[in-house]
This record gives sequence, C-alpha cells and structure tokens, in this order.
Amino acid sequence: MFCIFCKIIAGEIPSYKVYEDESALAFLDINPVNPGHTLVVSKKHFVNFEEADEETLCQVIKIVKKIGLSLKKNLAVPGYNVAVNNDPVAGQAVLHLHFHVIPRLDNDGLKPWPHQEYQENQAEEVLNKIKIN
Amino acid sequence: MFCIFCKIIAGEIPSYKVYEDESALAFLDINPVNPGHTLVVSKKHFVNFEEADEETLCQVIKIVKKIGLSLKKNLAVPGYNVAVNNDPVAGQAVLHLHFHVIPRLDNDGLKPWPHQEYQENQAEEVLNKIKIN
Repeated sequence: MFCIFCKIIAGEIPSYKVYEDESALAFLDINPVNPGHTLVVSKKHFVNFEEADEETLCQVIKIVKKIGLSLKKNLAVPGYNVAVNNDPVAGQAVLHLHFHVIPRLDNDGLKPWPHQEYQENQAEEVLNKIKIN
Repeated sequence: MFCIFCKIIAGEIPSYKVYEDESALAFLDINPVNPGHTLVVSKKHFVNFEEADEETLCQVIKIVKKIGLSLKKNLAVPGYNVAVNNDPVAGQAVLHLHFHVIPRLDNDGLKPWPHQEYQENQAEEVLNKIKIN
C-alpha cells in the first residue's frame, strides 16, 4: 500500500524532522497554517483513531506535548492548536493518523468554527444515542 | 479558583454526561459546532498541555477514542475532528485543558484553515529553532 507518511518514516521521502524516537516521528508540514506547523505520526501505520491501539495513542500524545512546549519556547508563540482530522469528511488528506500542532500568533486571522444552539430536547436525544455506560 | 469545568466535574453545574470514570469526564458542549460535539476533560485541573502530566494525557486520549467510536457508531457520522485550543490565542475559552470531539457531516460547510508555503530557507530556519534532540 502506498502511504506517503510511511515513506517519510522509512526515509524514502525527505522531511524536516523535529523529533523522532522508536515509536513516532514529528516533522514540519510543508504547507503550514503558520510556520512551525508540525505533524506527529506513529511509526506503525494506522488509518485513524479507531484503528490505533491505546499504547500508540499514549506515545503520540506525549510527543504532541513535547512539540507544543518547543513551539512556545523556541518560536515564542503564545499558544497552539492540536488537531486530528479523522476521516476524509473531517479533512483527513493522508490516511495515516496524524496530529497537527499549529502555532498561533496574535491576529493571525484564523477563525474558529461557528457554534450552534440545541433545539428543545435535541441535546437529550443526542445524549441518549451516544452515551457510553 | 473558579473553574466552570471543575464545577461541572463536582456536579455543582449540571451537564449532559457522555462518559465518566475516575480520571475523566466527557460531556456535551452546549453550543456545539455540530450536534454531538463532546468535550473530554481530566478531573484533575490542568490549564493546558504543558501543565498536564503524561499519565493524564494518556487517560484522556483513550477516552477521546471512545467518544469518536460512539459518534461514528451511534450518530452514523462519517468522521470527526479532535481539537485542543491550547491557550487563549488559540481560542481556549475555559482554562481547564479540554479535548473537543466534533462530529462531521457531508456538506456541513465547515472550512479548513488556509495553508501557506514556506519562503526559501524559512523551513530550515524554523526547524533549527524547534528541533528536539
């Protein structure tokens, strides 16, 4: 199977490596939302959250924390967004689970998504469907 | 210190609880981006990623996975976004670390943020600043 991130992990495609250990790799997104935008991926290929095992998710989220710390300390940004676009409908362009870490700047013009209000009883109906016992 | 999420965790403010265990709570965002939009928080108060210990991050990311599975299975959505707005510049409105899990629908009109291109040598310069050895 062709996976561009597996090829980056294997060194077959070059990348700007921010961090690497036995379980995961962090590298610059070459089309960043803001400079320093980093992707964190597990070295094992998982398409998305549902495929990934808990151990891998733990390893990756620890590295997300390391990257965020580095962005704040070394780029002097006041914060960042962490995002996973899980599945194509959510904007996932490469089908290998990856965490975006996006440095944010004052007045960078990035807008949050609009929020809605629930209609009467709608929240209860949704809750009854998704609640995990 | 007043923290609205700590009050929700303590039961002093009601919430629509999707999942709860000893370490974390998941509840509906009452102003959802899409219906079913859920917030996952650790019961221990941490402002952001940098404050949170690794064990807590692991516990929370496992619950994020559970929520995503429930959204796909029980709301029949084709995917979701996971997001942390880390610090006010990134849109963090409540200063208690929380993971958004946002169901996505075909043609829901939500737009990704625009991407840029690096200028010559800019990626190398950024990499040299943020690289973790």
